[in-house]
Amino acid sequence: MQQSDDSGAPSFNPLVVLELISDTKEEAITWLLSRIRTPQQAGGAGLLVEQLGPGVSAEHKDNPNLFLVGASWERLLSGAEDVGLFKEYSDGSMRGFTCANKHNFKDFQGDGDGFLSMAECQYIIKHELETLRAKDETHVPGYSNAKLYPGKSIIRRLLSKGILIQMFPLHHKEELKRLSFSWYKKFKLSLQPLDEIRHYYGEGQALYFGFLEYFTFALVPMALFGVPYYMFDWEDYDKYVAFAVFNVVWCTIILELWKRSSATLAYHWGTLSRKKAFEEPRPGFHGVLGYNPVTDREEPLYPNAKRQLRIYLVSLPFVLLCLYLSLYVMMIYFQMEGWALSVHDQDPSFWTGVLLYIPSIIYAVVIEVMNLVYRYAAEFLTEWENHRLESSYQNHLVLKVLVFNFFNCFASLFYIAFVMQDMVLLSQSLATLLITSQILNQFMEAFLPYWLQRRRNKKMIRKVQKRRTPGDKELPLAEQVRLEADMSTYLGTFDDYLELFLLFGYVSLFSCVYPLAAVLVVLNNVTEVYSDAFKMCHVFKRPFADPAANIGVWQLAFETMSVIAVVTNCALIGMSPQVKAYFPESETQLILWTVAIEHGLLAFKFILTFLIPDVPKHIQIKLARLEFESLEALKKKKMLEGTEFRKSVQ
Amino acid sequence: MQQSDDSGAPSFNPLVVLELISDTKEEAITWLLSRIRTPQQAGGAGLLVEQLGPGVSAEHKDNPNLFLVGASWERLLSGAEDVGLFKEYSDGSMRGFTCANKHNFKDFQGDGDGFLSMAECQYIIKHELETLRAKDETHVPGYSNAKLYPGKSIIRRLLSKGILIQMFPLHHKEELKRLSFSWYKKFKLSLQPLDEIRHYYGEGQALYFGFLEYFTFALVPMALFGVPYYMFDWEDYDKYVAFAVFNVVWCTIILELWKRSSATLAYHWGTLSRKKAFEEPRPGFHGVLGYNPVTDREEPLYPNAKRQLRIYLVSLPFVLLCLYLSLYVMMIYFQMEGWALSVHDQDPSFWTGVLLYIPSIIYAVVIEVMNLVYRYAAEFLTEWENHRLESSYQNHLVLKVLVFNFFNCFASLFYIAFVMQDMVLLSQSLATLLITSQILNQFMEAFLPYWLQRRRNKKMIRKVQKRRTPGDKELPLAEQVRLEADMSTYLGTFDDYLELFLLFGYVSLFSCVYPLAAVLVVLNNVTEVYSDAFKMCHVFKRPFADPAANIGVWQLAFETMSVIAVVTNCALIGMSPQVKAYFPESETQLILWTVAIEHGLLAFKFILTFLIPDVPKHIQIKLARLEFESLEALKKKKMLEGTEFRKSVQ
Repeated sequence: MQQSDDSGAPSFNPLVVLELISDTKEEAITWLLSRIRTPQQAGGAGLLVEQLGPGVSAEHKDNPNLFLVGASWERLLSGAEDVGLFKEYSDGSMRGFTCANKHNFKDFQGDGDGFLSMAECQYIIKHELETLRAKDETHVPGYSNAKLYPGKSIIRRLLSKGILIQMFPLHHKEELKRLSFSWYKKFKLSLQPLDEIRHYYGEGQALYFGFLEYFTFALVPMALFGVPYYMFDWEDYDKYVAFAVFNVVWCTIILELWKRSSATLAYHWGTLSRKKAFEEPRPGFHGVLGYNPVTDREEPLYPNAKRQLRIYLVSLPFVLLCLYLSLYVMMIYFQMEGWALSVHDQDPSFWTGVLLYIPSIIYAVVIEVMNLVYRYAAEFLTEWENHRLESSYQNHLVLKVLVFNFFNCFASLFYIAFVMQDMVLLSQSLATLLITSQILNQFMEAFLPYWLQRRRNKKMIRKVQKRRTPGDKELPLAEQVRLEADMSTYLGTFDDYLELFLLFGYVSLFSCVYPLAAVLVVLNNVTEVYSDAFKMCHVFKRPFADPAANIGVWQLAFETMSVIAVVTNCALIGMSPQVKAYFPESETQLILWTVAIEHGLLAFKFILTFLIPDVPKHIQIKLARLEFESLEALKKKKMLEGTEFRKSVQ
Repeated sequence: MQQSDDSGAPSFNPLVVLELISDTKEEAITWLLSRIRTPQQAGGAGLLVEQLGPGVSAEHKDNPNLFLVGASWERLLSGAEDVGLFKEYSDGSMRGFTCANKHNFKDFQGDGDGFLSMAECQYIIKHELETLRAKDETHVPGYSNAKLYPGKSIIRRLLSKGILIQMFPLHHKEELKRLSFSWYKKFKLSLQPLDEIRHYYGEGQALYFGFLEYFTFALVPMALFGVPYYMFDWEDYDKYVAFAVFNVVWCTIILELWKRSSATLAYHWGTLSRKKAFEEPRPGFHGVLGYNPVTDREEPLYPNAKRQLRIYLVSLPFVLLCLYLSLYVMMIYFQMEGWALSVHDQDPSFWTGVLLYIPSIIYAVVIEVMNLVYRYAAEFLTEWENHRLESSYQNHLVLKVLVFNFFNCFASLFYIAFVMQDMVLLSQSLATLLITSQILNQFMEAFLPYWLQRRRNKKMIRKVQKRRTPGDKELPLAEQVRLEADMSTYLGTFDDYLELFLLFGYVSLFSCVYPLAAVLVVLNNVTEVYSDAFKMCHVFKRPFADPAANIGVWQLAFETMSVIAVVTNCALIGMSPQVKAYFPESETQLILWTVAIEHGLLAFKFILTFLIPDVPKHIQIKLARLEFESLEALKKKKMLEGTEFRKSVQ
């Protein structure tokens, strides 16, 4: 029994799993493993790799082609230099790691244990696997249609041809337990252990949770401001001027300050000054073989003009059409509601009372369906646009999804606020939207996947326990790997940020007419931390670390939203009875003043953005110091060479 | 005779002149010369320096302390590496010059003749002189109040103590003749020889002239559009909607395209990817000695908080007060004009007719005086703010002067347009302002200094010719140097850009009510090219080259102006009778539509700025290629070291 248990364990510390399709040809496997094992100097990846044993519950349907990948410490350290990892130096500054002066780094002890986190090791292995390139092979052995050419990434070709199903990093049971305890299992109010999250999941994840926490704290003053408004019934819809002004200043300042906090975090995590590696073409990219003008390597090329044509002649009109459709559906909703109201007014009975709710429910369902369908369409279109780089693909996808979601969620609110000018209805709609979307989200995002995962998990444990002594609850490695391989894949922080973006929109755009919005969002965010943390730890496969230096395109999205918030809040101020009372005789004067103040505020906002430095002074000094030192070192080196040259001449 | 002629000529090619005060102590001179001559390895500048001979017209009042500085070719090449010069490589790309692989650069021929332009050599010498640092001297010999500390730039201390009067590069008579011929002496329409201007004056100057040319060409379609408006009397002040729309699109696009042209120019001149050298504190900067947190060198420090207090508590209120004053003066002008008009209406005689012009004249004079006084005040205040870096000083000065000049020049036009809503008066005022300011400018900027210079020049030639054979019109070196030392110093492109900025304002803000504005500005720009070129060549001392990669803070200024232009043009459209006719019943509707369209245009403008890449694709590829190659070289080097390491272990 024990024997079969150990057969799954390799002779090294496994970090990453490669899963090939179960009927992969033997020659392809042999070739791939030898390429991975060949030392770097001979053009291989120089990594350790072993097939995963069949495990306890070896069944016929189990995929035998799971491979564990690891590496020696020396290999990991040289890989850390390859990927340009920044580590804390003995003088407390962050420097690019090099093997040559590894002993000058702070936490480096002889063999390097504890120097690289597991997430970093996994990231290094991923990088080394992805940059394992074909030499003179013309195709993958046994698969003549999986073409290769010198310099083509082997792993990406295997992925795009479907021979490699997935590549994922393994969880570390003990670390995970420790992390989840300090993260969400202590029921006391405390900050999230961002450094530990970063240690386990990498910088991209940690920045998301950092932003979530920051956003929650930033909302607290607004929530405190909002409670008395609601409690003492100040909300007679003409006292919201103070709130709107507060809104405008608030949303400008918090975004600027976030940039600074994010820079501080990224500096201490070593991603702020880390240079981006040369991005490889994404797996789905296709084109005619040609010479890349930058690298002079042979690789598929796709004319940019053709891509631009696809974007502007197909994608853009499609998005505009969808926006129009969304507006059209909204108008139908308002017509239906008007009709339901008139029916109820003519004949107020129980059934017509129920009828009043029907339009809202239908509209909510239609919005959800439209968002879902649109998401698929956007992914298809962006794929079809054939972007060469993953980052460009992501940007185009985010833009498409963002614009449509913004329209879908806020169009009805804008219509109520500015066309119908019904503030009571606006506050009701806002409350309904906020509360329902929160409940729905938490359910769809965490509890449903958790429940599904739990069922699978229990089945596996039961299966294993059948053949083992009861009481031993730890799963053997082979089962653990298979279990993780079956978990859903975490698709990145996209949906999490999108949710925060919409919440930010509700608060910054309209919270002056429903002051409790900030309170609701704070509550939502607190539970969001728990559910997101839980789902990261127990529902999804561990994701690879993403060495992000900031929240990327989302910073721009939030800043755009804050500009829209200034315009909206000014318009709401201009429409308030309080302000209207100042201009009893002339509406024109009122509008002109509102517009003038709005322009002033926008100008002030831009000046503020300009005046607040994006990186705090003490980090700026550290960065300048590093640059200065490298300049001085260069000068000294040159001077020495000059002296040597003179000596050799004399 | 010939003897005394040659006594002024040094044994090397003189490039830069240092002028010390005439009663400088001998020991200071000896010390300075020896520090300049000491080789670099021994901590000196390693340059050649000689005192200028007395020349033909040696008079008692002539300053004897003029020193000519030059350098050997090897020294200049190593200096080129120090300053990080980019040069064309043998494969056509631009690379940072290094002495080690100098033979791989395109124009390098053995001794390097023709490889570095004279302007580059002079820039290198300036850099080497400015980075000549004190070692263990505590003060300049003979001047116990001119304190030094290790690492302090000697030249800057001499300048700030007034011992060094000036440091300037010499003209090259023949090159100058060739340049001025191809620049402005051929009376035919042709592009300016930007490469030659850059070759002689450096990148900063060449970019200014490039921008001037670009701006002129960009105005041509607008001028062509404007002529028929004026000729066929279309200008009945309600047909300017088309013009305003054209304006809005035009000013967005030209600024974006300029960024691209400027990047192309800067790439070919090697300044685009050149790294900025560590900026030294400016000569006037003072503070308490302390340790610079970046360099760890002992140098004066001045707390940033104190500077911020000075900026926000003194400078900002002062600027606001000046703006208020400017508005106040404007109101007085309008009152005076109203009063003059009423006097003329009551009693229309010749004298009251003359009286009508008096307010305009007084206002014009007052504006000029205010601009002048304010400029001094701004310089004083910015000096007093005690900025550490020259760039930060310049930015604060530009901002102060820009805001006030904008107010002074445009406030009355805005008042006429939006408060008085008198389009006829607006077009008249615009025409008057444009034409008078052009005439005044050309006179003050070029002809007056030229005339003064010419007188001095002739006196010198006459003096020399008295003692020489007639017919030999070339001045000997000693006289030429003294003549150049007496020329006015060119104070940089500030005033030239400011003038263009105001012209850009007239055209983009209001040209729809006076379509001839663009024509006038085009004419002005054509003469401006000639007068600026002339003044650069014959009126001013040669300036040091400024390795600029773009037009800096002015790009931002022009972009801000174009945003204001969008707002102004939309307001003018909204006020036109044509548009008003569409909303006969409701002014509110008209304003709301105007504001909505304005917001749409602003959003469109920002999206456009975002979509048009700042650097053209082919330059991007070249930059990426360079980066890729340096990465590959690093990898290869590491790999080789790895192999050697393995070999040595085996």
